This record gives sequence, structure tokens and C-alpha cells, in this order.
Amino acid sequence: MSCFANSHAENRKERARDLGVPFDGTPGALNAITDVKSVEVGHTTLISGEGPLKVGVGPVRTGVTAVFPRGKDSSDPVFAAWFTENGNGEMTGTTWVEESGFLEGPVMITNTHSVGVVRDAVIAWRLKHHPPSEDGYSWSLPLVAETWDGYLNDVNGFHVRPDDVFHALDTASSGVVEEGNVGGGTGMICNEFKGGIGTSSRVLASKYGGYTVGVMVQCNYGQRDQLRIAGVPVGREIPGKTIWDDDVGSIIVVVATDAPLIPTQLKRLAKRVSLGLARDGSYSGNGSGDIFIAFSTANPRAEAAQGTRQIELLSNDRINPIFLATVQATEEAVVNAMIAARTMTGKNGRTVVALPHDQLREILRKYNRLVN
Amino acid sequence: MSCFANSHAENRKERARDLGVPFDGTPGALNAITDVKSVEVGHTTLISGEGPLKVGVGPVRTGVTAVFPRGKDSSDPVFAAWFTENGNGEMTGTTWVEESGFLEGPVMITNTHSVGVVRDAVIAWRLKHHPPSEDGYSWSLPLVAETWDGYLNDVNGFHVRPDDVFHALDTASSGVVEEGNVGGGTGMICNEFKGGIGTSSRVLASKYGGYTVGVMVQCNYGQRDQLRIAGVPVGREIPGKTIWDDDVGSIIVVVATDAPLIPTQLKRLAKRVSLGLARDGSYSGNGSGDIFIAFSTANPRAEAAQGTRQIELLSNDRINPIFLATVQATEEAVVNAMIAARTMTGKNGRTVVALPHDQLREILRKYNRLVN
Amino acid sequence: MSCFANSHAENRKERARDLGVPFDGTPGALNAITDVKSVEVGHTTLISGEGPLKVGVGPVRTGVTAVFPRGKDSSDPVFAAWFTENGNGEMTGTTWVEESGFLEGPVMITNTHSVGVVRDAVIAWRLKHHPPSEDGYSWSLPLVAETWDGYLNDVNGFHVRPDDVFHALDTASSGVVEEGNVGGGTGMICNEFKGGIGTSSRVLASKYGGYTVGVMVQCNYGQRDQLRIAGVPVGREIPGKTIWDDDVGSIIVVVATDAPLIPTQLKRLAKRVSLGLARDGSYSGNGSGDIFIAFSTANPRAEAAQGTRQIELLSNDRINPIFLATVQATEEAVVNAMIAARTMTGKNGRTVVALPHDQLREILRKYNRLVN
Amino acid sequence: MSCFANSHAENRKERARDLGVPFDGTPGALNAITDVKSVEVGHTTLISGEGPLKVGVGPVRTGVTAVFPRGKDSSDPVFAAWFTENGNGEMTGTTWVEESGFLEGPVMITNTHSVGVVRDAVIAWRLKHHPPSEDGYSWSLPLVAETWDGYLNDVNGFHVRPDDVFHALDTASSGVVEEGNVGGGTGMICNEFKGGIGTSSRVLASKYGGYTVGVMVQCNYGQRDQLRIAGVPVGREIPGKTIWDDDVGSIIVVVATDAPLIPTQLKRLAKRVSLGLARDGSYSGNGSGDIFIAFSTANPRAEAAQGTRQIELLSNDRINPIFLATVQATEEAVVNAMIAARTMTGKNGRTVVALPHDQLREILRKYNRLVN
Repeated sequence: MSCFANSHAENRKERARDLGVPFDGTPGALNAITDVKSVEVGHTTLISGEGPLKVGVGPVRTGVTAVFPRGKDSSDPVFAAWFTENGNGEMTGTTWVEESGFLEGPVMITNTHSVGVVRDAVIAWRLKHHPPSEDGYSWSLPLVAETWDGYLNDVNGFHVRPDDVFHALDTASSGVVEEGNVGGGTGMICNEFKGGIGTSSRVLASKYGGYTVGVMVQCNYGQRDQLRIAGVPVGREIPGKTIWDDDVGSIIVVVATDAPLIPTQLKRLAKRVSLGLARDGSYSGNGSGDIFIAFSTANPRAEAAQGTRQIELLSNDRINPIFLATVQATEEAVVNAMIAARTMTGKNGRTVVALPHDQLREILRKYNRLVN
Repeated sequence: MSCFANSHAENRKERARDLGVPFDGTPGALNAITDVKSVEVGHTTLISGEGPLKVGVGPVRTGVTAVFPRGKDSSDPVFAAWFTENGNGEMTGTTWVEESGFLEGPVMITNTHSVGVVRDAVIAWRLKHHPPSEDGYSWSLPLVAETWDGYLNDVNGFHVRPDDVFHALDTASSGVVEEGNVGGGTGMICNEFKGGIGTSSRVLASKYGGYTVGVMVQCNYGQRDQLRIAGVPVGREIPGKTIWDDDVGSIIVVVATDAPLIPTQLKRLAKRVSLGLARDGSYSGNGSGDIFIAFSTANPRAEAAQGTRQIELLSNDRINPIFLATVQATEEAVVNAMIAARTMTGKNGRTVVALPHDQLREILRKYNRLVN
Repeated sequence: MSCFANSHAENRKERARDLGVPFDGTPGALNAITDVKSVEVGHTTLISGEGPLKVGVGPVRTGVTAVFPRGKDSSDPVFAAWFTENGNGEMTGTTWVEESGFLEGPVMITNTHSVGVVRDAVIAWRLKHHPPSEDGYSWSLPLVAETWDGYLNDVNGFHVRPDDVFHALDTASSGVVEEGNVGGGTGMICNEFKGGIGTSSRVLASKYGGYTVGVMVQCNYGQRDQLRIAGVPVGREIPGKTIWDDDVGSIIVVVATDAPLIPTQLKRLAKRVSLGLARDGSYSGNGSGDIFIAFSTANPRAEAAQGTRQIELLSNDRINPIFLATVQATEEAVVNAMIAARTMTGKNGRTVVALPHDQLREILRKYNRLVN
Repeated sequence: MSCFANSHAENRKERARDLGVPFDGTPGALNAITDVKSVEVGHTTLISGEGPLKVGVGPVRTGVTAVFPRGKDSSDPVFAAWFTENGNGEMTGTTWVEESGFLEGPVMITNTHSVGVVRDAVIAWRLKHHPPSEDGYSWSLPLVAETWDGYLNDVNGFHVRPDDVFHALDTASSGVVEEGNVGGGTGMICNEFKGGIGTSSRVLASKYGGYTVGVMVQCNYGQRDQLRIAGVPVGREIPGKTIWDDDVGSIIVVVATDAPLIPTQLKRLAKRVSLGLARDGSYSGNGSGDIFIAFSTANPRAEAAQGTRQIELLSNDRINPIFLATVQATEEAVVNAMIAARTMTGKNGRTVVALPHDQLREILRKYNRLVN
């Protein structure tokens, strides 16, 4: 019943910039979180069944996504911090991130009711790849986040299995990141259009250190009438029936950078995610789990030492371009998710339409914001 | 050397809506924080001297602003909570707000180097108006916030005196709130135009409870090239020399509501202020003290009881319209501050120009966002 | 392979007070968390196998414990808050507790590597007992905490199954709470003696409102040489080989009260847990997951309302006796866990001895602290 | 009317260890916060007047204390973090400490109603010693904390003047730290005995890095019947009339170390202060401002760099001895404050007695805890 749909060619044709949406700042080569060297992303996409809901059978529109800060072969922790704009959601493992300043494994994202199976499967996967000595201690506190896909998916059917988790972990890679209806984002809804996974990046000018900031979102939040793209009230310009009465979704955001930041500074990055979402119109509703994690791939082996070690630290006086890059890449990653997503029909024959590309261009033109 | 300039007629002519800036939501009668019943605002504005800086002499371009949640004659605390988007600033008294859930006196705003004198003067004022019994305990932990006006003002001259604080407290009133170059906002700079005090409000539809949310800002943050108004990149459309290389300012925001919210909920309101600022283009730079306080005027005498008492509580499921109102009123209050502010010349003959109203209208028209 | 050992008679003979350990304050009838009316506790205890570790086979020394604030038949949330003294651990669901101020289901405690299966099983159990309407939204963010039992238990064998979780939930009851080697506490170690589940309570004098505070711990923290009981350096008085070089354990603490406290106040209770643990000698080591949740059973249906509702609030000026009760009940619950626990042999034939009762009495006598 | 009483010889005769109170761990040469190299402490003690209160005249029993992390001649910031166990108090400047991870000036401690004057005077002192270039920015966010001395002192008379602040700053020195009725601690009360300033330190074994941890307290908290010293219920063994009905005081604690810790880790140290206070019997009452700041003198010029720089970092796996040292030094510093304090008569002829040394020894002997 699993369908591992990872063919890049089909799903990623156009991105927001290709359509003429104006964004500030300079993206990296891939305009993706994987522009930050060593970051790897893997998806497992589960799509099966049609028609009426049969709990435990389907229809299935869900999945799981894995993000490795230092690649899937490394168990070297990264400095990290997290922030919650609105906490109607789950991100396990954050208590230890907050305390230690380190993230010790991958970031996993799935649906709300599969957080547990994903968490324990990450432990099993780590035990298989990094088995403890028989007497040695071994414990893991995996980081797993979620958004709710029960509008299209049989979320109460618990369709994500350990093997699906292993697949996302084992197939994680650098390079192009698939966007839209994939991985944990498969069944997600964003501003009442089809949502899912999106990504973007910024590269700083060399006078600011030449650092890269990459952002990946699993986006499932928002009300259509609040949607702004490039400052334009796009949501209101597209009439049609809406899905929710309210802001009931969520968004998980992962921020990666190679700038040498310590946890105190990474928390500041995580807080800037809110500002990027606000540019797209979010007011972070009561039902939303808007939870963000930021990490730095600089300073390898910062934790491994048993005594002291030298680490590199960027001055706070140099952090502004990184803040701005975080805001900009977040703003764009959400739009990329919506542009990449395709109209999907799921549970009980419900259909969620994708943001219409042509109409978006017309609206941007109306407000003199269309690029070329 | 003090100049108590409080004449309403002169300073407040046009506001952002008068110029055709589009905003969402329905403001209250005054479109001000004083639309929340019982809220009173007082300003002391200190303007004197010209030309070269003589520390301790001038030029003086500063002041102090007082906001009373329940009016200046009440010592009844209000439920409150605070949030920091970026903490390069001061708001005294917040440790007790966080712990107790109550704000026990007025909110004061002044310049960075006058926080101390304002704090102790608030205690003196309270002792005068609510003297303790001789054996009774009496202590105060006043809430005083600040932004830095040293570009135009002799900030190191410590020009705010206890009498100036008493004046702001004694003259606080309901009704129209003066905006722009007044009170604590006198010498402030916002997005590299003249800034200062601004305010706005929203009234919810009766089906959402009919509550009022009022916002007041002392606005001193931002880079011109980031400024967005109504989603339009206004800052970039106005060429000219800039003041800063960086985002060095700050913004203090006060959110008032009559909705019956407990501190847990008011913290959520305070967090939404960030989203409003982001709509105006803020990325909350390292040098910025972006600190927000939110309080509810509902539930009088919630703290006074020695035992238990009944309080009213709004369901979290009904809080979304209040979140959105907070975002919208914040977005508008900043623009109101910039529209009300007038070009000012201060320390060493430096001039900070006001946002040109006509040019703003032209730019909004260019992007098809001008209302009438 | 599961062994549901819930016979009260055998495991609970003596408690700390029975041995003459002096404690301050007045406990409730059961001296247990279930002295708070409506609180129900259920355990599933899993003990099987002996000898060398075979991952996935055994030996098994683990389990799961459930604590229902309003009984297992209620889905009415309680006001709640949490606090972390040291975050090397997991407590899922806390992001929503922090945001909303409510705990929406039971508190679950298990071993570190079974948090996921317990979490998803709680969702399944809730779906079975409170099925959603077909079109209605339904999501859960269960609260599941853990400590690590891998010294005695095959923790990497994932022996807790959904049925074990259902059993703990289904058998939860008021009345006497089993302590020691039961439920989630089965394989735990405390101050290098056998640890596990412990509980205690305090009842306030009627002039302080007559409220009850109940505490339950799953205790797995500490170094023997730090252990103090009733202020006496008990750990150092008992020579013998130690288990750890370091403080590698954890402790999860649940605080229940019927006092009408809002989340702001319950966070203050959760913080007082640290003070109780410190009285027993804890310094909260780097490897420790010292995570606490506090809830109030007052104010039923506080969240259910779609509009506003009246809730009862205790004045902060009346909260001190509740703080002190929390400290005292925490201090005692840990000692009760150690007194109730029995010497256990587990993985690879390792044995962890129970705190010797007679020797404890001798030591207390030596320091003139033995009661009768 | 100021009395600068700084003669070391008279006030410091015996300390807790001299009396035979048992403590764990190894103190530094001075058993003081100044065992951490470069830390300097200065006091201004204000004692004048007797008899009935005349507000603004006296009696005066107050003062101000300054702690410089890197000595009074350095303006090089230190990594820092803070924590509040109970926030009925003030510590200005902490918003920027939390955000930046740095403490940029001295730690000041005074009485509740003099925080403002001390804050602004610190700015004036810094401007005098480190004047800004005329065009350069210059701003300060001083860290000033307080406890309430209004039982003995005319706290509403605002007797601390800028010159008193300058004196504490200018006379700060390394070496022996005066304890008891000095500086900010002059009029303080601790566990209903005379309190004030106290200090202690620990030096780690060289296998743990040989680091020093120093603690200084301004101690004004507590109820007599809760007081425990070395685990012995000392408070209850000393009958006599008490001062409060409740825990109305406060305690400010400064933790200094030369261990190379980043802010994430220093927050963990600050949290351990609670555990030390709990060993002395604190339950941190509603009226208490229990606020703690921790800094590291390692990594000079960590902030000065405009780009990146190398800093030294201690592994979390090596932090436990530093945690324990913090707990132990806090526990001892409070007792040292009480032992050093002398019986004082102040406002309205009220007398607060010192903890009787001989009686303390008798009580410790009764519980077999007296050393020699």
C-alpha cells in the first residue's frame, strides 16, 4: 500500500520565481535548504485509495520527511535552538535541544498521529547504524514534528510504518529537494490551497561572510483571505469556496545555516521565521502548530570533546544579514510549497485545489508586482 | 527648559487612513488604544535648544509617555503578559508581570538613559497618591520601557526629570491620543524617517464578542529599504540619503484589550505584535529592542481578593479574531506614527525628515493600493 | 511475555513515615496523588526473562503508568503548566500545554525508547472511547514522559506494546497507588538504589483553603553520595559499590491539586518541584531529564465553552501554603519510591539493591532524626 | 549622612565553617566570589539616624553593591545568563543578557526603590570612564537588582544617591569580600534573622578542569521555621518572636566562574542556584524576588570581534562538577551572610537579631552535625 513517489522530473517544474513572483535577496544554487553543505533531505510519500473513508484502510495521503544536518552517515550533533510562534502542535526532542544546545539526529516531519511511530523508528534506525557497546549507555531523544492532514488523509488509520521511516532516512540526499505533495507534506493544505513541502535559500555577500541560510517548510496553515504574496492580497483576489472557517493548520519550519552561530543566536534565527510567515499573511491562529528549529552545520565535533574545544563564533554585530536571509527564505519557501503542490483528491472524495499559477501572475500584474 | 507641548489640534491632522492607505479590519471610534475603555494616555514632550551638542545642556528632543490600563485613579492591577522579539532594550517590571500574571501600575516609555529616573519617579508618585500605612509593606516594581533617541537628543544629558514624569502621569486622559513627535516618542526615528508615538484599534464583530483591541507604539526601528506599507515596498521607492548602516532602533508596543483573557492568552497576543511589525517590513535587527506588553482591562479586582474569586475567561477557540486584530492594529499604529511625525532638527543640526505624504500616495497608486 | 503485576498487598508494606522518617506538613488520607479527588492512576508492569541481554527478547524490566486528572471517563481538560529543571529527557505534548494552558488527556510515563508507541496508543485509545464525527476534526497531542531503564531492561527491545498502554489506561483507578517496581518505574534506579514510582500528598489547613496537593514521581535520578533524607547525609553513610560514575538518571514528577489555579500559577508549582528534589540531595546532573507537570482539577469545563465562562481563581497572596506543600510532597514521594522498591536483578544478571530499611533507621537515629 | 563603612577588620570575624558548620566541596583561598580571577566587589553602606520614621530623613539602613566580572577597568563583556525562581523583584538589563548572551557591565544590587537611581548612575559612570565619540552611538542597559529593606530602612526616602553608586563602583576590588550588613545588604533580613551579603566558592579537582565557581548573595528571604543549615532544622530549634507571617523577602544571587561556558550552559548554572537555596530550606514564597545571574570570565573579547573569533567551550559532559559546585557555594553563601550579619536596630526602633552563633553550634551538635 505504500507508494514511494520520488520522481523529481514530474513534480518540480516551476517555482515561484519562475512565475515572476518578486523576492528580495540572493538564493543559492538550488534555492533550497540543501544549499547548506552537508544537509540531506529524504521523503517517503504514501498515496493510495480513493473514495469514502475506511479507518485503517484509506484513502491514504500522507508521508514522512527527514532532514539530516550533517548527512545521514554522521552522528555528530549540531548547535541548535527552537521557537514556537503558536504551539498547537508537537515537536519531540526539543527539551534536550533547549537544554544542551545541540540537535543530535535528523529532523523528522510527518502527520499528527504518526509522531510516535516515527520517533521510535528513528531510534531503531540509529541502533542499527550506530549500535551501542553492550555495556555502554545508549539513548535517543529524536526530534519529530507534525502537521495534521486529516482533511484528505485517513489520519486515524496510522498508515506510516517503521519501514516508511527507514526509507526516508535511507534515501536522504543532497541536491534538489522535491517540493509540494511529497513526504510529510503529501496531504497538507496551505491558505486553503494545496500545500506541502517547500524550500528556499539565501547566500550572503562575501562582505557579510558569504554564509548560506536554507529553509524548508511543511506548510499546512492559513486562511485564504489572509494570503499575501509579495505584499499583494492574493487570497482575496481569488474567489471560491473555502475549506475552513478558521485558521486550523500548522507549519513546521527548519532553518539551516553554515554560519558559526551558538544556540543563543540560533534561537534568534528561529524567532525570525515568524516574521517571514507574517509577510505571507499569517496571524498564527489558535489551531496552528507553528514550530521552528534552527541549526548550524559549522563547528563539527563541538560536542564530541570530553574536555574543552575551540569553536568559531560569529559576532552578534554581524548577524543582521542572517536574520534578514531567514525572513526572506521563509517567505519564499511557503510560496514555493504552494506553487509546487498539485490539486489533490483524497478522503471522501474531497478535493483541494492548487494555487492557480496563471491567476497568480494576473494578480501580481494588477498590483504592478509581476517580475518580467 | 521643559516644553509641555500637548495641544492636540496642531499635531494630529492626517492619519494613515486619511491618506488612503488600505488596512484590514474595523477600527474603534478613535482608532486608538483609548478605544479600550478606561485606558488613559499622558505625554510629556521636552524640546529645547539647537545646534551643537553640549552634554547636559542640549539640544533636548525627548520625553516620557504614560499608559494607565484602568485610568490614573485606579491601583487595581490588570492581567498582563509580555514578549520580546529582540531584546536589545529595557522593560523593567516584567519579571513580576511574568511571575504574577499582573501589571500593577502604568506602562511608562521614555529614552534609554532615562529609564531609572522614570522608574523611581513612578514609585514616588504612587507613594504620594496611595500612601502606605506606617507599618504596612509598600513596594513597587514599575514597568518602564525605552527606545534610544541619541541621534537627535542629548541622551547622555539625562534631561527627563521627576517632574516631567509626574506631568505625564497627572495629565493622562482618555480620548484622542496625540501621535508623532510627542512624549517618549519625541526624538525617535522609524525606518529612517521621523518616528514616534502611533496608535490604532480594532473592534470585533458582535458575533466574536464585540471586544476592542488597542495598540500604541513608540516606534524607533527599521531600515528604509525594508519599509513596506500595505505590502508595497515604499522604502525603496523613496531615494535619498539614509541615516543608519544597520537596523539600530527599537520599538515598544503596548496592547490593550477588554476581552477577558488570562495571562497565558495575553502572552499569545504579545507574540502577535511581531507579525504586525513584519507586515511593515521589520526583520528585528540585532540592535533593536522590540519588546511588547499586553494587558486586559476585564476582570477588575482579580488580584485584590484575599481568597478566591470568580473571573471571566474567553475560550481559546474564540481568540483568533483577537489575534488578527492585534496584528492589524500593530501594522497600522506604526504607519500612523510615521504619518503624524513631523520633520525634526536636533543635535548637531541633524535633520530627520518625515515620510512625505504626497509621495506615499503616489507610490500606493503605482502599486494599485491607494484607497480613493 | 507481559506480566500485569498489580497486587497491592505484596508490594506496599512500609512507607517512609512508617520507618520513622520525619517529614513536615499534613498528608491526605492515602498520602498519595489520588488524595486529589478524581485523579486516577494505572500501571502496566512488564517483567520477564533473566540473564544475558538478547535485544528484542529480554530481560524485560519496564512498563507504563497513566495518570488521569479527571478520571479515565472524562475528556474535560485541566489547567496545566510544566517546567524543566534539566532537559535530558522527553515529555511530549508540552508545547500545547504551554500555549493553551490546558492538559487534554492523561499523563503517561514509560521508558525512553517507548515514548512513541505509548503516544500513538493514547491516540488510538482516545479514538476508541471518544470517536470523532466523520467530518469533524480530531487530533491529539498526548503527553508522554520517560526515564531510562537500560541498566536492567532491554530498552532497545521496544517491549512496551499498544495493549500494555491500553491496560494501564483501562485499569486506572482512584485509591491506593502502588509504588516501587511498578508501571513505568519498574526498572528504574534512584540515587544508585532501586527506584521507581513514589507518591505523597499534603492537605492544607482550612484557613488556607483546605486544598490538597498530590505528587507522583517516576524516579531514576541521582548519585548515592548526594542522597539526603530528612537532611541527613544518608548516601554517604551506606558504603558499597556504586552503579554510575555520574548523575545519569532522570525524574518525572506529576503535581496535582484541587486548588483553583490558572496556568501562570501552576507553572510556579511545577518550579517548586526542583526545591523538593534538592532537599533529597539532587543537583540535577547533565544526564538527567528532570521534567515536571502540574495541573489543577478545579474549574471543570473551563475549556469546553465556546464563548466565555466564569472560573474560580485563587489569589497569589494565598499561594504560599500550596508552594510549601508541593516542596514537601515531592521530597517525600522520592523517599517513598525508594522505600517501596525491592532489590531487582535484570539484564546481564545485574542487581540493583533496595535502600536497606534498617540501615536507614540507624542512620536517622545517629543524626537524631528518627521519629519514634 | 552617608557612612562608608568598609573596614574589613571589624565586620568579618567568623564564617560558617569557623563555627563548625559542615559543607561539601573544596572552597577557594578566600571562599568568596573573588576567588574567580578578575572579579571585583565594591560596597557602599549607608547607616544613619535612629528612632521613628521620617520619610526622606531616615533612619537609613541601606546601600549598594557592585560586582565587576572583569574588574572595574574593563568594558569587555562576559558570557552570561539569568534565571528566576520567583519573580517578585527586579533585575534590569536581563532582556539584553537573554538575547545577546552577554553581560556588558557590572552587576549592581541595592534596595527595591533605588533601582532607578543606581541604573542611571551606572550609565553616567560609564560615560565618564568610557566616553563615546561625538558621532558614535553610546547606550547602556545596566543590570541592577534589588531586595526590599523597608522593615529597617526608610526605603521610601530614596537615600541612595548617584555618588553612593560611584563610590561602590570606584572602590570595587579583588580580595576579601565584606559580608553581612554591608552594601546593598545593609538592612536585609534572612529567615527572620539579620541577613545581608554573603559569599562562598568552590574549586574543582584538576581532573575536572580545576575551575573555580564563586557565589555572592544579597539575602533577604525566608521564614525562620523553614531554615535548615547542613540539613538540620535550625529555625525550629530557636524559639522567639518572628517578624513576618509569610515569606516576603527576596534573594539576589550572582554566580561567577572561569570555566569556559556559553550562555546556554550558564543558564543551567543559574538554575542550580535554586537547588542550593532549597538546601537551606527555601520554598521561594510568592513575595520573594529570587533572581540569579551567572557569568563566565573565560573567553575575553568574545564579543569585541567584528567578524568571527575562536572561543573555548567546555563539553556538557564535563559540566556536572560545576553544577554541584554552584549548589554547594550557594548553600554556604547564605549561611555566611547570616553568620556575618550583626543585630541591627533601625526604623521605628525595630531590631532584627543576628543568628546566635553559640546556639547554632549547640543545635548542630544535637543533630551530630557539628564539625570539631
